[in-house]
Amino acid sequence: MHSLAQFTVPAIADISDAPLTARLQHLLDNKTKPLGSLGRLESLALRIGQVLGTEAPALLQPQMLVCAGDHGLAAKGVSAFPSDVTWQMVENFLAGGAAVSVLARQHGLALTVVDCGVAKPIAPRDAAAPGAPQLLLRKVAPGTADASAGPAMTAEQCAQAITHGVEVVRALPGNALLLGEMGIANTSVASLLLARLAGLPLADVTGAGTGLDAAGIERKRAVLQQALDANAEATTPLAALAALGGYEVATLVGAVLQAALERRVIVVDGFITSAAVLVASRLQPAVLQRCVFAHRSGERGHSLMLAQMQAEPLLDLGLRLGEGSGAALAWPLLQSACAVLAEMASFESAGVATQTA
Amino acid sequence: MHSLAQFTVPAIADISDAPLTARLQHLLDNKTKPLGSLGRLESLALRIGQVLGTEAPALLQPQMLVCAGDHGLAAKGVSAFPSDVTWQMVENFLAGGAAVSVLARQHGLALTVVDCGVAKPIAPRDAAAPGAPQLLLRKVAPGTADASAGPAMTAEQCAQAITHGVEVVRALPGNALLLGEMGIANTSVASLLLARLAGLPLADVTGAGTGLDAAGIERKRAVLQQALDANAEATTPLAALAALGGYEVATLVGAVLQAALERRVIVVDGFITSAAVLVASRLQPAVLQRCVFAHRSGERGHSLMLAQMQAEPLLDLGLRLGEGSGAALAWPLLQSACAVLAEMASFESAGVATQTA
Repeated sequence: MHSLAQFTVPAIADISDAPLTARLQHLLDNKTKPLGSLGRLESLALRIGQVLGTEAPALLQPQMLVCAGDHGLAAKGVSAFPSDVTWQMVENFLAGGAAVSVLARQHGLALTVVDCGVAKPIAPRDAAAPGAPQLLLRKVAPGTADASAGPAMTAEQCAQAITHGVEVVRALPGNALLLGEMGIANTSVASLLLARLAGLPLADVTGAGTGLDAAGIERKRAVLQQALDANAEATTPLAALAALGGYEVATLVGAVLQAALERRVIVVDGFITSAAVLVASRLQPAVLQRCVFAHRSGERGHSLMLAQMQAEPLLDLGLRLGEGSGAALAWPLLQSACAVLAEMASFESAGVATQTA
Repeated sequence: MHSLAQFTVPAIADISDAPLTARLQHLLDNKTKPLGSLGRLESLALRIGQVLGTEAPALLQPQMLVCAGDHGLAAKGVSAFPSDVTWQMVENFLAGGAAVSVLARQHGLALTVVDCGVAKPIAPRDAAAPGAPQLLLRKVAPGTADASAGPAMTAEQCAQAITHGVEVVRALPGNALLLGEMGIANTSVASLLLARLAGLPLADVTGAGTGLDAAGIERKRAVLQQALDANAEATTPLAALAALGGYEVATLVGAVLQAALERRVIVVDGFITSAAVLVASRLQPAVLQRCVFAHRSGERGHSLMLAQMQAEPLLDLGLRLGEGSGAALAWPLLQSACAVLAEMASFESAGVATQTA
């Protein structure tokens, strides 16, 4: 059993159910369309049916969870933007002007923004109006320590952040969780976790983030190498998360574990939320049975990250914004998969002839 | 000037507008996100803004147009399904049980089904209730002649079908047209048009359609070679369309030309609707400035077809159903592109710091 300080990882059950899969496949195969002709939408319908444990899956009260935190590494110049952008974007999420705010509104996704460890104090808000973004204050500390000089978090801090993620999801309604994040320098964190947990060279997993040039990426790689060296002993998933991770990533790890435990459909966004799922899946592999990967990011390293989880994302639009924007963009495809299962006629019911050749 | 019997192709103007593009790009670049980080969604926003000629594009009353017709070629065993499926699916579209019916309903797309040349008589309906699919009877003939023995349509028949498409679109409201089709054996038509107009070998452009096995594809190729040989003189776009095409494809060609003339956003579905756009764009290249290609089909030949039009589709989900299903699935991305332009905050308005590196 994995554990870290006060946090014990819950056991995530294998939910593969061959008879249910067969019934779902039979339903799809008898819809009025050539066999398999809805392609990836059909495997998506199978996945959602499996997670929700039914031939008639319905996605209810989908929750977009955006976890925010700051990083000591940012002071080392690993990002094209200053740390202040983290709190400014938290305000932007709440004010409704960020990409994820716009897309969540478009698709009726409830938006919850969590201060997991933003450097600047974020003021509490009055309870959000129905449909408006809500803010949760779950700050463990005002940003992590500089991982290039030692552990980013103590075991206790990391455990607290994970526990926050568990508790936040436990309190949210619905059966689908979309993952988002904000944190200047957190592509660095994702690169570090991928390098450490998958044993991949930093050169292959370090990219431009929000917009570094080639020289900037070189500097970033050198800093990340220092972080790996300074935390050489942190090799288990939870130790690596504490040593290299951020508060928003740790909170997302807890959120993913809890959502998996509750059999919610987990919609993974880009490079950083994938890193949280990578950590969670190294703790409990069956987490991946609950995941839908929304898109392949333009960020270098995301394809390698996805391959580590045998994940085939739905979209490939060169997105590299994060926030949950890719998860929100993919959301209508999940709704379509359920609609096809629920509403399409069968050959028999519609009186359509079946294949002859 | 291209013309065919009574039909004269309208001139489609070049709508490229460098100052507008620059203003749209400036708007996108000042949204609160790293430069270019919304990837293909940004080029989609530029495209829609160009078509509608505004920095504030709004998609209004989107119309899903599904054109149906039968094909003499079907009797030669080029499809896995019998011709009767064409009229059965028309009934299914109208009854609401087909994939395109379900997806159009999900996304609020008005659905119009046109009998362009279905073999069986389709009974007229009472006027559709608001939001329900409507049927238009624009049958030129009950299916085309067998193209493997001579022209599928006469010039007059083809011109009539194109004119129907023009008139149907002229009568539809809105500023966005989504293309769909139904017609057993019409992947054969698309393969023939691609082979003839692009000079590609049949072996490269002939696929499984609704589900042929390898031997079936071999038989299909042999029949398609007969069709090319029997119509060797039909080399211009309109002559090829008449000789090889179908009534639904010709009606779609007219619909595309009229939609382009009116500067509607044209959302192209899969292999068969792409063939209609290929024909239209060989007549009037600026048609392509109005097109958004929804997806890359699993049908062999579609990638080559897209390359002929320098088209980069939005989705790549292995769809090969047609009907307009892929266009409907991509539709929310167009809405998202407009929402990002209209609703995202700028760095200035949100008080977010800009890039430092």
